[in-house]
This record gives sequence, structure tokens and C-alpha cells, in this order.
Amino acid sequence: MSSQAQTADTLIHPGWIVPVIPHGDVLENHSIAITGERITAILPRQEAQAITAGRVIELPGHALLPGLVNSHGHAAMSLLRGYADDQPLMPWLQQHIWPAEAAHVSADFVRDGVELAIAEMIRSGTTTFSDMYFFPDACAETAQRLGMRCQITFPILDFPTVWARDADEYISKGLALRDDVKHSKLVTVGFGPHATYTVSEPNLAKVAVLAAELDVAVQIHLHETRGEVLLAVEQNGERPLDTLHRLGLLGPRTQCVHMTDLAQQDIELLAATGAHVVHCPQSNMKLASGSCPVGRLQARGVNVALGSDSAASNNDLNLFGEMQSAALLAKLHSEDATALPAADALAMATINGARALGLDERIGSLERDKLADMIAVDLSQPETQPLHNVLSQLVYACNGSQVTHSWIGGVQVMDGRQLRHIDLDALGSRTREWRSRIQARRSND
Amino acid sequence: MSSQAQTADTLIHPGWIVPVIPHGDVLENHSIAITGERITAILPRQEAQAITAGRVIELPGHALLPGLVNSHGHAAMSLLRGYADDQPLMPWLQQHIWPAEAAHVSADFVRDGVELAIAEMIRSGTTTFSDMYFFPDACAETAQRLGMRCQITFPILDFPTVWARDADEYISKGLALRDDVKHSKLVTVGFGPHATYTVSEPNLAKVAVLAAELDVAVQIHLHETRGEVLLAVEQNGERPLDTLHRLGLLGPRTQCVHMTDLAQQDIELLAATGAHVVHCPQSNMKLASGSCPVGRLQARGVNVALGSDSAASNNDLNLFGEMQSAALLAKLHSEDATALPAADALAMATINGARALGLDERIGSLERDKLADMIAVDLSQPETQPLHNVLSQLVYACNGSQVTHSWIGGVQVMDGRQLRHIDLDALGSRTREWRSRIQARRSND
Repeated sequence: MSSQAQTADTLIHPGWIVPVIPHGDVLENHSIAITGERITAILPRQEAQAITAGRVIELPGHALLPGLVNSHGHAAMSLLRGYADDQPLMPWLQQHIWPAEAAHVSADFVRDGVELAIAEMIRSGTTTFSDMYFFPDACAETAQRLGMRCQITFPILDFPTVWARDADEYISKGLALRDDVKHSKLVTVGFGPHATYTVSEPNLAKVAVLAAELDVAVQIHLHETRGEVLLAVEQNGERPLDTLHRLGLLGPRTQCVHMTDLAQQDIELLAATGAHVVHCPQSNMKLASGSCPVGRLQARGVNVALGSDSAASNNDLNLFGEMQSAALLAKLHSEDATALPAADALAMATINGARALGLDERIGSLERDKLADMIAVDLSQPETQPLHNVLSQLVYACNGSQVTHSWIGGVQVMDGRQLRHIDLDALGSRTREWRSRIQARRSND
Repeated sequence: MSSQAQTADTLIHPGWIVPVIPHGDVLENHSIAITGERITAILPRQEAQAITAGRVIELPGHALLPGLVNSHGHAAMSLLRGYADDQPLMPWLQQHIWPAEAAHVSADFVRDGVELAIAEMIRSGTTTFSDMYFFPDACAETAQRLGMRCQITFPILDFPTVWARDADEYISKGLALRDDVKHSKLVTVGFGPHATYTVSEPNLAKVAVLAAELDVAVQIHLHETRGEVLLAVEQNGERPLDTLHRLGLLGPRTQCVHMTDLAQQDIELLAATGAHVVHCPQSNMKLASGSCPVGRLQARGVNVALGSDSAASNNDLNLFGEMQSAALLAKLHSEDATALPAADALAMATINGARALGLDERIGSLERDKLADMIAVDLSQPETQPLHNVLSQLVYACNGSQVTHSWIGGVQVMDGRQLRHIDLDALGSRTREWRSRIQARRSND
């Protein structure tokens, strides 16, 4: 803290600060100062007394940590939460989800679905989400209106949907959105080719050229099930990851989602190219897709982030649950209780997510000059007492409902669990209307 | 509803009633009447208008369901929550948990730890728990004072601990407790031999004789890891389950906890003897112990209940989390997304638990003349909207913090998330004192 900066907009005195960088650190008796959109100081509480702040917040029973980064999802699908459960991936998609989407998805559906998703995400500690869904302009507009940070990877498919006719139209609409939000402080835009089994090679190659030219992110569902990999080998003679590599689509801008079926050669290729993996443990378990070998990926230095996937396959967007599931699943599958300890799970949900999304210079940890994307978690309730270990409590005992405060780019979006930019009563009414409409249509089928 | 019973102590009008029996049912526009400790009617709301009640409760956004049954745990160990994480079972026990217990466990420790556990359990929907721990008299006294239902299976070990010197003393103290509480409406007492590797055959045989004579429950940790089973085969020439059977300990009063390593012969033996299995999915994952083959057990008609294990190995006592983990793990491990659907997971946490504990004629479902052990869950919040499917929402989207009301034997123990019999401030102070004491001792080691 330089001697000049003796003022701040907001000065917070939490019980504990978990900065995530340095890895595993927990600071006691420290304070954090915010001015504008940035963190201007993290310093011992005693030194912080010298700062004159517009607002001082005492949170003696709380931990302050970086806002969580949900690196994969389809936010608007929250309107289909619980619509079809206990189904395998392909029947779930083909017989339930895709027909419902064809009947109902519109810009209004996306606007309301994304608002519902953002309400849930902020209430459970997420401050940045990645989204891949139709009408991404409606998602971008909603996120900006509600003050939420997001990466949008606009969808690309070979076949027509409610949003576009063919790959060219998906791409041109998506790039138009990128132009529209290029000055946004909250929204970044990249490519979201759905999967290698739904986007042809010429279209994937086109994405590779454009993404390199524009230097933007590409997110794709990849190796979600063993069946997907086996079918690709049968039909194309190679694994989907190899196809992406051959087409020039694998590199440090690439976010590979799911990745349950991985041979050692796949892991080496990810490590060599610098591509990122987004692990979605609960969705993979619920759809019986398989399990991402997190430990083997980490051992080769591959960056692994965490995603919830959609509320239609999860059925929540709660990253505290995903952290716990990721840690427990890693221990079970490696038959090693020391695998993925609490600090590593928390890194996956914060700085690793920021890295995957190319935002790690701005968010993902609490450090001076980073954006003030942060949350306060109340550890004083029975569920997280006694407090032998702050990191353990956050990963293994919190369920997300202990998140009380949230800031995004220095703007407070939740205060004592009250959302500042969302009217939950009005949102509840619109959500119930969507339920009636969707159920009425279903009864007619 | 007979025409005579036109009065009730309490009449509740919830949005939905999930009675658990019949399996999978969800009643809309129904009401439930309670008089004294029992449910006196479940009937269409219109007919319920004829009932004159002392208190009428409108819960239009809530589901009413049986209180959850946590069939395995060590409640007082909540004071060691997060004390030693990311460790395998044996080092965790031998280097961390057992030394801490030797230093700190007393009747006071148990009284405070059990109160902390009960606070967390009621807040997450549990109304009955099973407990196996030292100073079980302190647990019984605390449960009765706080109005909580429990089965206590008092611990039996070959070696001395803070509570008893040898197996005979464990048993005589435990049976004295059974005498003390024999008229209790809330507490039942059975035998809790720790495991086949900590209790000798003569002592297990003694338990078998006494349990048969007294007709009481026996709960034991069994087949928790493959290592336990392999070591038993090497040392005794038989699997632990076979040892129990040979000693006459396997029958419909027996509750086998964990059961991760099961051959088909084990499953047949469980089915033939009518012994129950208590599945603890999160604890088994966190300690990398293995995974209970729920689907194969159910296919042979074995009753499978659900337990949290202790907060020192979980690290919460939240059965909503266990239901979700059980369902997701069953799908992943059977590679079948239709495995353990929501209704089955809910049955495991309610009626199957009641069956395992021998309480299914009194609790575990909402039926006329059963005890009014029930909870209300608020489904109106963003996390559980839109409400396409009540059962899905309860199992896959609730995290326990949506439980708002709880009744045990007709007595309301929580109202709008306020605990009626527990002073959380006073409990918090005592919990923080235990933390200081435990950490001070650890620093001296």
C-alpha cells in the first residue's frame, strides 16, 4: 500500500481473506480496499485504520474470496430445470430437450431464463459465467443489465434451430454480437461450436481460421461420453480431440468441456497445445457420461476449470456443490483420499476458470489492481462451525447458501443475501408463466 | 377421514404433499391434520375446510414430506469438523481423530457436539438420526431435551477409551442406558460393535446372544474398504460379512454400514438374512473408501438406507446432499442415467431408513396414524424454479437450506428456519470454546 492511496470507496474487514493466489493462503486480521472497479489494497487490519473510506463493512464471521467462475453452462435452460430427469444423454437431448427448445426458445425465453440463472448463480457465489446458447444477444443484454460478468461462446451447429439456419448464419450473427459488445466491461464473446458430431469439418475449420484471426476463445463439448469417442473413431478413424488438432482448433484459446474419456495420448496433446479442460462433475454423473481424470490432467500441467452445465442436467448452478463433487469424485476415482485437496478445488472454481476464459489478469484471485469480483461467505452458522480449517469448510461444508455479499467489478450485486438488481417477485411470476406454457404444450403432445 | 374427527391441533395446507408411501406420489391441493403426536388425516383441501383446528398453517409454495432419517453418524464429532481432511481412512483415524478424541472427548464434549449436530440436522430436514459414540447417555439426554428422535447404538470396542475399559464395560454401560430410556418416546437403544477388526469374535458372539434375547438393533461398520475385506480374508480366512453370519449376527435387526466392497455372494447373504445396508456416499468418496453397489442390492430386494457419517469425514450432516450424491453416484457407477431415480433416493432417506432402524410402523412416510415427523421445504425460491417436477427438485436442486419447518412427534422444532429449542448464540459460543481448546492442544503436540 503506497502512502498516497489513503482513501478508498469501500473498506472491508472480514474474519478471513482467501486470496487464492498465493495458493492455499488464508489471511487473518487483514482488510481489503476497493476504489472504482479495482482492489487497491490488501493489508493488515491495523494498517488499514489509516484509510479513509466512503463505506466501511465489518464482516467478522465471514471469509472473503474471489467470486467463483462457472466455466460452462447454458443459462437460459434453467427454465427447463427438472423437465426431464433420470435419462441418458442422447434420449434426454433428442426426445425431451431439443423438442422443448424448438417449441419454446425465443429471445424472451433467454432473457427470463438467464435472469433466473444469474439470480441463482449470484446467490451461490458465482460472479462470472460462461454461456453457450441461442439468442446470445439476449444473454449479453441481460448480463450487462444485471451487472454480471460473462463469456458468451455463441452456438454453431450444422442444422437449423430457432436462432439460425446454417453454420454461416450462426457465425455471422455471433460475430455481429461480438461487435455490439466490444466495449463492454462485462461481456466477452467467442465461438461455441457445439461438438464434433454436430458441426462438420469444413465449418470447424472456418471457426479455427476466424478464432485465430480475431484472437478469441473457442468452447466446445468434447469427449463427453465414451460412446461419442468410439463413434468418432469408427466413422472418422480418429478421436474427436485429434480431429480438432488436425483442423487447427486446439490451443491456449480452446476450452474443452467434459473430457470424460481420455487416453494418455489425449492428455499429452492437451498439455502440448495449452488447451483448457472444463470439468462438469455433477452433470457427468447425472447423465452417467463418465468422469474426467482431473488428477492425471493436473499432473501433466493441464489447466482444469469447473462448470455446472445447465440446470436441465444438473439441476443447479451452484459451484460450491461442484467444488465438493469434484474433490470427492477425484478421491474416489483415484482411490486416494489426498487427491484434489480443498485448496485445489477452490483454485479450479476461481483462478483456473479465469485462465480458461482468458481473464486471469483481471479476475480469479484477490490481488491488488485486479478487478473487485469477490464474495463474502458467512462461516458463523452451525453448518460451518467449529472453524478448524477455513478452506475445508468452504469446499466440504458450505452449500452455497452461506454466501451473503457479492461484488462484480467493484459494484455490489448482493448485500446480506438481498440481490440489488433483480426483483425476485417479478422474476418468480415470469418463471411460473413459463412453467404453465411449457407444461401446457407438453400435455398436448 | 371419519366424520367424528372434525377437530385437529394443527391443520397445514401445503402446495404439495410428498407422502413417500405410495412410492413416487405427489399430492396437490391436499391438507394434513395433526392431533397430539400423530397425523390424523391427509385429505383434499376442500374437505379439510370442515376441520376446526387450533392452528392453521398456509404453505402454498412449500412441499410437505416425511422428516429425513439419517441412519448412520457420530453426532458429537461435529466438533471435529474439518480437523483433518484429505487423508485416507486409517491415517485419518490413527494419527488425527483417535488422538484428538483421547484428549478431548467427555460427556460435555458429547453434549455440545450433539447439540451442534442436531441444529445442523434439523436445519437440513433430518428428524431422526442414528448415533454411535462414546457417552451415549449424554447423546440420549441431549436428543430428548431438544425433541429430536434418535436410535443410539452404543459403541463396543476391545480396547479402552475415555468411556469404558473393555467390551464388558461398554456393554454393561450401554445396557444401563437402555434401561434408563426405556420409556422414552424419542430414543431407542441398540448395540454398536465398531467393526470386525476392532471387536473380537467372543465379544461379537456375546452381542449376538444379547441382541437376540433383547430383540434390539445392531449397527456395525462393515466392508468399508476393500483393504478391510482383504485383510480379514488373509487373517481369518473369510469375509467380514461371513464372520458376522457365522456368529449369528446377521438378520433383520442388523444394520451394515458402508458396504463398499461386495461380491455377489455377499449380496445374496444380505438378501437371505434380511440385514439392512446403510449407504454413506459422501463419506465413502471423501475417504476414497469405495462405492456401495446400490442398484445390485436393490435388485435383490435388500433394504438400503442413507447416512451422512460424521461431520469429521463428510463434512456436513445434510441428507439432501446425500440423496443427490447417492443418485448421481449410482448413475455414474452403473453407467445408467436411469439408475436410482429421484423417488428412490427420497425413499432411501425416509422409509428405508425407518425400516433399517425398525421404526417403519411409526415414521418414514406421511400416513394417517403415523407419528407427525415431517418437514416443509420452500420450493418458491430461484434455486427450485420453475417447478416442472417436485421430486426432481427435492433430490437434484435442493441443498437443504430450503427446509423451513420441522415437526417431530407432532411437536414443532423449527418454524420459518427458527429453531425452537436451541439457542444458536449460546451454542456458537460453546463451539468456539471447543475450537480454541482443541487447537491449543494441537499446537502443543
